[in-house]
Amino acid sequence: MEKKAVVVLSGGLDSTTCMGIAQERGYALYPLTFHYGQRHDREVEQAKKVAAHYKVKEHRVVDIGFLNQIGGSALTDTALDVPTEGTEGEIPVTYVPARNMIFLSLASAYAETIGAEAVYIGVSAVDYSGYPDCRPEFIRSMEQTVNLATKAGVTGQPIRLEAPLIHWTKARTIKEGLRLGVPYHLTTSCYQGGEAACGECDSCRLRLKGFKEAGAEDPIPYVNRG
Amino acid sequence: MEKKAVVVLSGGLDSTTCMGIAQERGYALYPLTFHYGQRHDREVEQAKKVAAHYKVKEHRVVDIGFLNQIGGSALTDTALDVPTEGTEGEIPVTYVPARNMIFLSLASAYAETIGAEAVYIGVSAVDYSGYPDCRPEFIRSMEQTVNLATKAGVTGQPIRLEAPLIHWTKARTIKEGLRLGVPYHLTTSCYQGGEAACGECDSCRLRLKGFKEAGAEDPIPYVNRG
Repeated sequence: MEKKAVVVLSGGLDSTTCMGIAQERGYALYPLTFHYGQRHDREVEQAKKVAAHYKVKEHRVVDIGFLNQIGGSALTDTALDVPTEGTEGEIPVTYVPARNMIFLSLASAYAETIGAEAVYIGVSAVDYSGYPDCRPEFIRSMEQTVNLATKAGVTGQPIRLEAPLIHWTKARTIKEGLRLGVPYHLTTSCYQGGEAACGECDSCRLRLKGFKEAGAEDPIPYVNRG
Repeated sequence: MEKKAVVVLSGGLDSTTCMGIAQERGYALYPLTFHYGQRHDREVEQAKKVAAHYKVKEHRVVDIGFLNQIGGSALTDTALDVPTEGTEGEIPVTYVPARNMIFLSLASAYAETIGAEAVYIGVSAVDYSGYPDCRPEFIRSMEQTVNLATKAGVTGQPIRLEAPLIHWTKARTIKEGLRLGVPYHLTTSCYQGGEAACGECDSCRLRLKGFKEAGAEDPIPYVNRG
């Protein structure tokens, strides 16, 4: 029987790298994309292209726009500005409360439904240290919770939460992704969501820095490569 | 400053009892109701009446109908029959994968947004032993996970997950609720969701048995009180 993995796929660089990693580990890929009222729908479109690239059997895109009803952040609340002043130090204003916890709860439920043994998520504790739910101790605790919450755990077939990038810099992620043939030309990272990436938001700057340190050229178009 | 508690409020007997308990403990109540494509919308209507009874400042009703896209159960999938054959033994077919994990993830995110210090949920490990995510060990693990996932936990103001009914029989819950003046006439428990409760589904039978053991009369109308 095929081994299945759910991959939380945003259409960004990190989650798309997880597709390549899970594929190399022999999993049939079941990407799950959350659409939650971002300012732009571009990420979802890119996620669909990534899923098509990997010829997956099924790609679920789930609308969780209700998140706007229980929280708020620069990425979902158009009244706030997108930050361009760096990612270090305090918790970023783009923070959606417990976003990864919500995503992993839903992805684990889906994993149970389809009988997947693993859930992949592209979080990194290195580049996004401001988010509490990107830390290894969160992932470990969440995995334990998932297996207490599901039949899978009770019947002795636990679901593993895999965060392969968690200790990696962006450069290391990109190097590994390039080795695996990850289609970075299909990914998007820009907070602005334009046809070409802005090159100026925190996400673009982190991505450009990563490619530079990896000694590679980012294949997507930019307004300004900095 | 007022102490706030989020109460996961379905409009059923257990969650409504939690409203009474949290109120007695001095909390300003912030009920949160999830509407997830039940066969009936009656629960949501009852939840609104309960919220009005308690004169809450705010009652959020969140549509999470997308759960149908990641799982399936007798309560959300109209192709399956509602069970009437008892609740003991194996995991019931009404099981929504990891439903309480999903609810608590969302409720905790909401708690962080509004600065609530507690989240109340009306799960019981006694009457619903078939559900993995009604067990005390799940709640404890979830609480730990929540506080690793949120700013609240990181900044030293943890969110407490309160499941006051977890070791209580239905009869004990009802006795306590009656002492607190919980408006059971506004609650609904029937899986069928009719104007009068059917009295035959597992949920009705459990409720009727609870009132009987508590030595009280259930104030809601039934088609058949058994």
